[in-house]
Amino acid sequence: MRIQSLMSVILLLVFFCSISYSQPAGDVRTNVDSLEAAVLLKTDSDFNKLSIEKGFVEAFLSYMADSAMLFPNGSNLITGKENIKNHLSEGPANAVLTWKPLKAEVAESGDLGYTYGSSEYKFKGDDGKPAVHYGKYITVWKRQCDGSWKFILDIGNPSPAPGGK
Amino acid sequence: MRIQSLMSVILLLVFFCSISYSQPAGDVRTNVDSLEAAVLLKTDSDFNKLSIEKGFVEAFLSYMADSAMLFPNGSNLITGKENIKNHLSEGPANAVLTWKPLKAEVAESGDLGYTYGSSEYKFKGDDGKPAVHYGKYITVWKRQCDGSWKFILDIGNPSPAPGGK
Repeated sequence: MRIQSLMSVILLLVFFCSISYSQPAGDVRTNVDSLEAAVLLKTDSDFNKLSIEKGFVEAFLSYMADSAMLFPNGSNLITGKENIKNHLSEGPANAVLTWKPLKAEVAESGDLGYTYGSSEYKFKGDDGKPAVHYGKYITVWKRQCDGSWKFILDIGNPSPAPGGK
Repeated sequence: MRIQSLMSVILLLVFFCSISYSQPAGDVRTNVDSLEAAVLLKTDSDFNKLSIEKGFVEAFLSYMADSAMLFPNGSNLITGKENIKNHLSEGPANAVLTWKPLKAEVAESGDLGYTYGSSEYKFKGDDGKPAVHYGKYITVWKRQCDGSWKFILDIGNPSPAPGGK
């Protein structure tokens, strides 16, 4: 490696370091972090869009890491794509799961992040009438080797209907 | 700053960079990461111990960041120490919340991490008999300026009783 290239690499590393290590560990985020967070928020939004277009089983399969774990309401923890696919496929036919991510945050190193938001699960009840379960969720994401985000943990629980007490 | 000191700083930054940026974004964790994860796992364990010793309201107040958010089962999202304290204080008297962290993971930058595990909520039911609600949880943690970990997000939902289907 030519000395000029080496110096460029060192300067680049120092530049990234100075960004990374000058940030306080508190809540103040820089624009660099905000950009990363915006990408993750959009990823969760795209995940929701795919759930609307193709159904939540296919969407979950597309956005989960191989080692993903699901924390289903009322069930035990479920690990791995095949088991998660089987669990998600057990629900009522034509059920629609949608959600709205409210916030994303990404670690300074860009490898780990989370999103949270509100969710709606629409299905036909036993009486054949449409029903909605409202909820909220936290999803933990990990950056993959190709730069994309996949979720590694996903958990939700019930919320009151909007406008209710 | 003397040129020697400056060079030391640059070399140190390059050293940290090479640690930080040479790691794959996948699941392979280095010992440095494992050490950080071990500290976070112990933090969640100590949090549980304090819940046993002093009650979960005091434990939550001790381990939550000022901006913490709670995602209670069946309720809306609750933000901030005072609101979370009020919510947690609404439950049955003498209720005991304990949990067992199963895993911790920390971002390469050491500023963000998560733990998850199983939980037990023991209380006296309306009939005066002891009751237990089993659950699982994910807690998202942020490193504070003093180096300690405080949680920023906490969510749980019900699980079947151990040994049950």
